[in-house]
Amino acid sequence: MSLIIQKFGGSSVADAERVMNVANIVANTYREGNDVIVVVSAQGDTTDDLIAKAEEINPRHSKREMDQLLAAGEQISISLLAMALEKLRIPVISLLGWQAGFNTSSAYTMARIKKIDTERVRSELDKNKVIVVAGFQGINKYDDITTLGRGGSDTSAVALAAALHADKCQIFTDVEGIYTTDPRKVPGAKKLAEITYDEMLELATLGAQVLNNRSVEMAKKYNVELEVLSSLNPVPGTIVKEAAKMEKMLIRGVTKDTDVARISVLRLEDKPGVAFKLFDRLAAKKINVDIILQSAGRRGTKDITFTVNEANAELARECIMDCFPDIDPENVIVDKNIAKVSVVGAGMETHPGTASRMFDALYSNAINIDMISTSEIKISVLVEEEVADKALSAVHAEFFPED
Amino acid sequence: MSLIIQKFGGSSVADAERVMNVANIVANTYREGNDVIVVVSAQGDTTDDLIAKAEEINPRHSKREMDQLLAAGEQISISLLAMALEKLRIPVISLLGWQAGFNTSSAYTMARIKKIDTERVRSELDKNKVIVVAGFQGINKYDDITTLGRGGSDTSAVALAAALHADKCQIFTDVEGIYTTDPRKVPGAKKLAEITYDEMLELATLGAQVLNNRSVEMAKKYNVELEVLSSLNPVPGTIVKEAAKMEKMLIRGVTKDTDVARISVLRLEDKPGVAFKLFDRLAAKKINVDIILQSAGRRGTKDITFTVNEANAELARECIMDCFPDIDPENVIVDKNIAKVSVVGAGMETHPGTASRMFDALYSNAINIDMISTSEIKISVLVEEEVADKALSAVHAEFFPED
Repeated sequence: MSLIIQKFGGSSVADAERVMNVANIVANTYREGNDVIVVVSAQGDTTDDLIAKAEEINPRHSKREMDQLLAAGEQISISLLAMALEKLRIPVISLLGWQAGFNTSSAYTMARIKKIDTERVRSELDKNKVIVVAGFQGINKYDDITTLGRGGSDTSAVALAAALHADKCQIFTDVEGIYTTDPRKVPGAKKLAEITYDEMLELATLGAQVLNNRSVEMAKKYNVELEVLSSLNPVPGTIVKEAAKMEKMLIRGVTKDTDVARISVLRLEDKPGVAFKLFDRLAAKKINVDIILQSAGRRGTKDITFTVNEANAELARECIMDCFPDIDPENVIVDKNIAKVSVVGAGMETHPGTASRMFDALYSNAINIDMISTSEIKISVLVEEEVADKALSAVHAEFFPED
Repeated sequence: MSLIIQKFGGSSVADAERVMNVANIVANTYREGNDVIVVVSAQGDTTDDLIAKAEEINPRHSKREMDQLLAAGEQISISLLAMALEKLRIPVISLLGWQAGFNTSSAYTMARIKKIDTERVRSELDKNKVIVVAGFQGINKYDDITTLGRGGSDTSAVALAAALHADKCQIFTDVEGIYTTDPRKVPGAKKLAEITYDEMLELATLGAQVLNNRSVEMAKKYNVELEVLSSLNPVPGTIVKEAAKMEKMLIRGVTKDTDVARISVLRLEDKPGVAFKLFDRLAAKKINVDIILQSAGRRGTKDITFTVNEANAELARECIMDCFPDIDPENVIVDKNIAKVSVVGAGMETHPGTASRMFDALYSNAINIDMISTSEIKISVLVEEEVADKALSAVHAEFFPED
């Protein structure tokens, strides 16, 4: 008998029909002889609707009251799912975050799980019950309700799997697993049978938003085996686990990210500490800098180019002006019309030919490479946004040719 | 400085505008130098919407999951009201039933408050905060959410007032107070300045559903002074308090109740214990019997006539058939086409003329009296439903003549 954690997102429980569909998946897993704990998010648009109500009354509400409000969303979905399981004659009990023992930090709207008191959960498992747990929420030391922020339900599921040493944590979504690239955009996209935590992290960061990063990091830390699979189509999904347990693949996937702005600062005085000063200021403003290129400019000056999320572009420009008050504003150039295309795979560090194969595929398709960044398991290039889809297809076809 | 409990029902917080209206009432009370605790119900149709969701998924859901579901309703309304108070710069905190210390029995959907742990509430009052408490809900010894049943928020407010020895418990509604009769039906209806708990209980039982009976009984038991007033029109309402503190009025009000069925059982064998047997059976089925008339029938038989709520009429008929299997079904007559008109007033016990004035008013208007029941503070008559409004107006005009 195994203990399986199953997590379902808001769209999977959006209406009565979908709630019954989830109940059937859970019931089947239970009837196969497994212990099952289900973690669910709020139904469909519930969270957005609650946020809209709050904004209408007071856009400057406290975060404490926001968490009190939002936690009602999962309270509704867990009790409805429990009722659906009752209909299938499955012994079941729903538990709110605090009832399931989720103790968190006090940081409202972005709390971290500190500890899970598993006593209640274990006692309900001992009674042979399926447990439906409210994801995304917990309680802090003041006995106040907290929420875990974006993707919090994934984190709840993985944390519970870690605390209970579950055999598997299944994350049900509206896709069948992790693909070599976005299947809605590239027809040749292939579903991966398995992927390492690190590869998954790179793919998530690069725009394949299937799993929340925090949950993958936690799964890696506690070695929780994840499976990403579809709640609508009952086929095996993608297993996410540690590298040692799986065959290394050269390339795991190809991604495109258009949420990139390239910022160039031209003709900076070429003396030590200039770059440090700038990146220190950006870090203080919590602006994440991705690819950095520094090059010699004309006559004792240097140019620094880097990329940030588009949302941070103007804030980054302000940081530059603060850092270098004497700079000519014309020498600060922000370009949002670019995209990042990356190949990800833990195997590439031992295959030096990967980069040249990628560049060759782009060159053969007349795509100009703007900047390049490499890590042990990733190679990224910046291209113009107009040719990003073409670049994605070209690189994907190179590494995953049509059968 | 006084401690004032203010309770607002679902219609008072139905939308953003009304939530702000309630926040203003609370803020004004707070700014006058009072400690304020607000008890609120779920917004408008929220509870009905949640029930509909549950029914769609599984009409035979457990009560435990129903309470888990319904409690989300007040969770939403308390946090929204807290945000509205934050907008008015009032220090405020919202508390769920369990956070406010409401310990209840384990009877899901109809739990009784056993004890209120006031520690958290007192500590928030010490911080000079307005506290917004979720009415209707609590927690049982299993750490599971319970709800208090119909009118539960009134009960929450009164129980909290009793536990904290509050100076006053204000129940805000959509009417301005308690009237001598239904002001929507009788133009001459007059608002009462004050009324005793017992009179209020009789009026509530007889159809003037402004305050929940349990809450009035609890207020009487713990001597909590209630005020019923309007959340839309800021004028003094009606004070409900103990009789010793107020002038006795002959008649406090006149009510009409059309939810009455009259059941006659004819030609029962005239021997001891027949009536007992029947009423014992009805009590076992939790059927509340109101007016009872027993009369000699023909040739050594007797007739028993009594009234019940219309919803219980058929169940009562079944009880009769079970009790007297040999009875001719034609001798069991159920008539739902009747109404009960009552006068209520603690003063009438010392004024024997009240009954004859009431009967005279009905006779003068050619209204036939079917059955009569009297208690120390109430006289009720049964009339045909078609003439009930006319009877109500006639009796009201007798005791409350137009100025």
